[in-house]
Order: sequence, then C-alpha cells, then structure tokens
Amino acid sequence: MTEASPLSATETARRIRAGILNATAVMEACLERARAREPVLRAFAHLDPEAALERARAADARAASGAPLGPLHGLPLGVKDVLDVGGMPCGYGSPIWQGHVPRADAACVALAREAGAVVMGKTVTTEFATRQSGPTTNPVNPAHTPGGSSSGSAAGVAAGLFPLAYGTQTAGSVIRPAAFCGIVGFMPTHGSIHRAGMKVMSESLDTIGALARTVADCALLIGAASGRDLGDPEQRPERAPRLLLCLGPHAAQAAPETLALMERAAEAASRAGAQVARGELPPVVTAAAEAHPIVMNGESAQALAWELAHHRDQVSAVLREKLEPARALGARALEEARASFAAAQAAFPGAIAEYDAILTPAAPGEAPEGIGWTGDPAFNLLWTALHAPAVTVPAGTGPRGLPLGLQLVAAPGRDRDALRWAEWMRQVMG
Amino acid sequence: MTEASPLSATETARRIRAGILNATAVMEACLERARAREPVLRAFAHLDPEAALERARAADARAASGAPLGPLHGLPLGVKDVLDVGGMPCGYGSPIWQGHVPRADAACVALAREAGAVVMGKTVTTEFATRQSGPTTNPVNPAHTPGGSSSGSAAGVAAGLFPLAYGTQTAGSVIRPAAFCGIVGFMPTHGSIHRAGMKVMSESLDTIGALARTVADCALLIGAASGRDLGDPEQRPERAPRLLLCLGPHAAQAAPETLALMERAAEAASRAGAQVARGELPPVVTAAAEAHPIVMNGESAQALAWELAHHRDQVSAVLREKLEPARALGARALEEARASFAAAQAAFPGAIAEYDAILTPAAPGEAPEGIGWTGDPAFNLLWTALHAPAVTVPAGTGPRGLPLGLQLVAAPGRDRDALRWAEWMRQVMG
Repeated sequence: MTEASPLSATETARRIRAGILNATAVMEACLERARAREPVLRAFAHLDPEAALERARAADARAASGAPLGPLHGLPLGVKDVLDVGGMPCGYGSPIWQGHVPRADAACVALAREAGAVVMGKTVTTEFATRQSGPTTNPVNPAHTPGGSSSGSAAGVAAGLFPLAYGTQTAGSVIRPAAFCGIVGFMPTHGSIHRAGMKVMSESLDTIGALARTVADCALLIGAASGRDLGDPEQRPERAPRLLLCLGPHAAQAAPETLALMERAAEAASRAGAQVARGELPPVVTAAAEAHPIVMNGESAQALAWELAHHRDQVSAVLREKLEPARALGARALEEARASFAAAQAAFPGAIAEYDAILTPAAPGEAPEGIGWTGDPAFNLLWTALHAPAVTVPAGTGPRGLPLGLQLVAAPGRDRDALRWAEWMRQVMG
Repeated sequence: MTEASPLSATETARRIRAGILNATAVMEACLERARAREPVLRAFAHLDPEAALERARAADARAASGAPLGPLHGLPLGVKDVLDVGGMPCGYGSPIWQGHVPRADAACVALAREAGAVVMGKTVTTEFATRQSGPTTNPVNPAHTPGGSSSGSAAGVAAGLFPLAYGTQTAGSVIRPAAFCGIVGFMPTHGSIHRAGMKVMSESLDTIGALARTVADCALLIGAASGRDLGDPEQRPERAPRLLLCLGPHAAQAAPETLALMERAAEAASRAGAQVARGELPPVVTAAAEAHPIVMNGESAQALAWELAHHRDQVSAVLREKLEPARALGARALEEARASFAAAQAAFPGAIAEYDAILTPAAPGEAPEGIGWTGDPAFNLLWTALHAPAVTVPAGTGPRGLPLGLQLVAAPGRDRDALRWAEWMRQVMG
C-alpha cells in the first residue's frame, strides 16, 4: 500500500471512486510515512493516527453504503493550525492558545469534508502565521527551513505524509514554503475561500490556499472548497501563452541561481512558442508592495488586541517588534496604505492586459539554512496585496541541491490562467 | 444615581474623568434600569450583574491608581452576541452554540476595553444575525419588534440599560433597529473595525457598528476601536451641506409617514441653508442592491458549512430556505454578484461627488407589529454593499407613536461627513 501516496491526489481520488483503492489504505500509507519521517520533519502540530484511521474507515463505510462520493472522497488532508477543525487542538503556533479545542470546523474544512476529504491532522504554522518559526524542517535537507508560515503543510505534502493541505498567505506563506519544499502552491484570488473559523490576522490580505504535488491537485482542493470551476490545468492549451517576465519591485534580492532560473524559463517558454516580454509594472501597482507591511502589521495588531492585552509576554519579541510600532503608526497611515492597495488593485488588470500571466520568481533563492527563519517573502507580497491568483511550480534545484520554484500570476479572477500556464511552464521546463 | 444614565456616553465619560462620577455608580444605575425593564425588554442574551459590577469596580481601581484613562473609561458596553467576549457565553442566537464560551475577546471588544469600556453583558442577536428573531421587544411598545439583527443592542441603548453598544450589519442590522428604537446607529466604512472574533457570515458585507443615544457617542466608540479621528460631530459646521435626497432603488416600499418625513427633512434642511437636490443613483450603482442577496446568502452558506453539515435541524427553516438555494445557485453567480459590487463601489464616489451626503430613509416606516419579524432592510442594503458609512438619527414618530429615523450616507472613507451632517440634520429637525 506504500505506493498509494506517490500518486497524485487526483489519481488517488479516481482510483478510490473506481474501487481500486480505499480511503483506509491511503491513510495507512500516509501514517506509515509519517511514522518514518516525523521524528525529523515535524510537520504535524497535532496527529492522532488512530482517530485519522477511524475517519478514513468512516469514509469507506459511506462509499460502501452507496452514498454519492465527492471530488475529494478519501483524500487525507493536512490543515494548517490557524484553521479550526472541530474537536482537534488548535494552537495557532502560539503558547497562548495551547489546549484550545474549537467546537466547529472552519468553513474551508467543513466544505472539504463535505467533498469527501479526510482530515489527517493539524500542520505546524509559525506563530499566528507570522515570523517566529515552528519546529518543522525542510524535507530535502533538515538543516534548512521548509519556509513558512504554512511550514507543516508544505513539508508534509513534499514528504508524502498527505496529498493535499491547506495553507494561508498574508505575505508569502503559501508560495514560498511550497517552492522551498519542491511542491506546488496555489493562492487563489483573494476571497475565493471563506475565512470563517480562521485566525485572521490581516483582513485585507489573508488568503486561504492549497499545497499539493501537482497543479491539478491544487485546483481540485480549491475548486471543491469554493465551488468554482477551475478547469483542468493539465488539458493541453490551444496555444502557447503571452508571458510578462517581471522580477517585481524586489528584483535586487534575487539570488544568482534565481536569475539563471528565470533565463532558463524564458528560453524554454520561447522555444515552446510563448511570447515572452520583459518589463516591470507601473509605480501605481508596485506601490502596493511598499504599503504591504503597513497594512499587514496594522491590521494584525488589531487582530491580536486580546493577546497583546492579556498575554503580552507570550507574544514573541519578534512579533511585538512588528506590532507595537504598527499601533503607534496610527489609523491614518493604515488608511493611506489601504488606499494605495485599492489604487494598485484598480490599475493591475489593465497593466497586464496584453499578457496571459506574469512569470516571476517564487522566492529569492533556495531555502535558507537553519530553521529559525522561514525566509523572505519579497517575491510574494505584491501579488498578495493585488489579490491576484498565484501558483508556484517546482523548477529544479539550486547550488545546495534545494528546490527552486517559478511563480505564475494572473489578474484577479483569472485563476484558470494562473493554473494552466503554471502547469504549462512546468511541462516545458521538463 | 439613576440620573447617571440619561447622560450621553460622552458626558458620562467626561464626568468620570473629572472625578464627579465613577464607573461603579454608572454601572449600578444601568443595572437598576435593567432590573426594571428586562422582564419585558429582554435585551440581554447574557447578564451577570455581580460580575458586571466587579468589572466596574476594577475600572474605578485603575482610575484610583493614577493609570491613564482611555476615552471610554468607565462606560458600560453592550456587546452583540455574534462578537466574542472572553469567558462569557456566546450563542450567536442559535441553539447550536448554546453553552459555548470563547476564550478571547473579539478584537473590537479588546480594543474598547483597552480604551476603558466596561463590558456589561451580551445582547440579543437574531439567529446568526439573520432573519429568525430573538425575544427582544421594542422599548417604546413591547408589541412591536425592536428591529434586528442587533435587537438587544438597540433596545438596551434606547431603554438606558447601557450608553454604548456594538452591532453588526450585513443588510440593515445596525441602522434599522436603531431607527425602530429611536436612537442613533452608525455603520462606519466597511473594514474600519477588525472582525477577528466575530461570527462573520458575509465577508463582503459584514460591518461592525455602534448604537448609542447621540451621534457623538457613536463616534466615540468607533473612534476608540478603530483609532480613527472621526472629528467632533457636534462642532458647528462652517456651512450648511449639499444633500442628495435619494430614496434609493426600493423607494416604492416607503410608507406614507416615511415619504412625509423626507419632505419635512428636505424643508427643514433647506430652511437651514442646505442645498437639497433630488435624484437617484445611476444603474451601475443601484445594481449592487440586486446583487446583495446573492452575495449575502452565498457567502453565509459557506460560513455556516459546519452548522449545515452537523446541526441542520437546529438551523431555522427560514434560514435554510435562504442558504440552500444560495448553495445551489453556484459559485459563478456569486462571482458575478461580487463583480457587480466592485463596479458599483468604483462608481459610487463619482456619482455623489457634488454632495456632502445622501439623505435617505432609515427604514420603510415604523417598527412592524409582533416580534417574529424584525422588518425589512430594503433601505439599508445598498449602502452596506457600497461599503459606505451610514448614520441614522431619530426624527419623530409615525402614526402608531413609534420612532422614525433619517439616514445620512457618505462616500467610503468620509465617515466624518456622514456623522457631522447626521447631527446637523438632527438639530435642524428640532
């Protein structure tokens, strides 16, 4: 049964529906890999193997009863520990919330379960999905970070502990860890997935996304949870894309291997028939990147008002150092930063109207050494602020043998384009 | 001490800071009125008088210690039961959540407490802030509804049980109950108050607002919770306003007394020097009113996915009849309705650029008879969908002796204008 997991989620679901595989066998294989990898990987914030198996058996019983099977039927799901699962501990990566057990599922969890997903466990998040990292290590090399804040979701998918996982992104918390772990990450258009039952930090930014081993698997989870038809990213497109190769406002932070990767990607895309233009976005759009930290920290400081009032000493120093100046900066600065977002969001679709997607790095380079810092979201925060759909696909490795990722971004609402051209890029990169 | 409460919140806070009054005396007076009125009014979902007094005494102890006093110091606060207060039962107006006690305060509650507010108790909400009403009666005539969904907050303020309360609005749930109870309601620009710790139904619509007996009191609470400087609505303006008298897309639903009120208001404003134009908004803007139920019900159905999956029989039939068709309508319809919102929001500021504010009814007429239905939000949902700040002020009574309200609306971000011209209208109406 150990061969069940290297299959994609899409193929696993197909086999379960065909009666070739069952949910219990899939979960057993995942648990076996978890037993082998968890001592070093530490992807889970909470895992009760017997209870996970019990849920898988219940899924099989439902199938045996002849009930209609949803698109995620029988698929183990990792849930980032800022999203509630009813009856499971939920700590938000903070000692303040140790022992907290929510009564209800977050909306995205309830909707995935309705579609047949089997929650396997809760995955490690950084503290409130911010900077202070958890214990998770990179599945390729445990001396390196897996990225964050969706650390456990990315590492767990990459190590085969579960085929699908939820992550959330405020700056770069879905795309960056996916790239660092060599898997696919998908942040859909802002607002695609309802955030009820999430520990929301920034209302203007926080976006629920998916981590999986294939683009189609990401589309499967987000499609099921949002009800949106995201198409079949693996369907051969009728033509090659028009791409804008754009390093973004933080281009200077790209490592040499990232610059080389972008050149290889541009060449491969051109060879495959794409029109690849090079350019940067207008200042009204890139201004959102400068406004990003003001919105993120200003809104997060409000979100954590109770924690700061009652448990200040248990908020990490690194987070307090972000939030306290943000409070001091005041509401006027926050309003101006939000106005900058609105202007950038209004201008963005027009600025890329000639292109099918933007081709840009997923991260500055390989995953940094050590697990005390999950890396820099410089190549993500603009797209998050623009509410744009973004997909990262694995694209080889860097000088230290760690994964690199390409990122494809489209205009808000054009999630299908982001997904299909990301899959197309993955294929042409070979 | 019974005279403490008829004072405005602003004046009460001033006297407490001056040492003329203290928080304990104010709370005692509020509790005395609650004892007298609650058997019929039923504004509270949860009230523990001794614990409320204890919190007031703690506020006085803080003051005695010489600690700096916030702008809400010592003011009793009613909190709608869709907003968490740590350690207090929170039922969201639903039997599903009976006995639920959240650990933390909602962000807006923590921020109000930081500013010195003393939480008095939780106020009755309709079921999940939707249609199915609670037990609260209208403080003017208990045979009538107080309006909803912020029923307890509006009735409690009107009856003097507390000077300030939080409400929330998805369609008309702050403005309508305020008007029905003869008090002031203020829905600030969408996003002014962080919704962490709120049972959010519609992410696109839900807005936290204030109920109080004066416009300045509403500004005091929202200013303290958002950090925004909302000005002094009672300061005499340098000139009279340019107003657009606009009945909105549901004009046909206005009762005769409402049409008469609007005429009186237009005359009074003109006499006081205002330029009053009459007109309607362009179709691109009013289209948001048609899209409103699709967004509200579509997003609410996602928000309640867990409740519908696990406790369907405890969701009221009237709510299920809204949510189940919304799910069936699908994600495409929801996306289109949200696109309609975005187009309306983009066009709205330009459409009213010549005016300081819109003058419009707060509700179709007086509060309907009976408490089984909280009334129609027809005159509210457009402004909620436009993310516009709106203020209602009391403006006399209708044929059955129940309160009527005027509503002033400004462009998003122009909360000061909505507040100051609402107060101005209240004064010129005498």
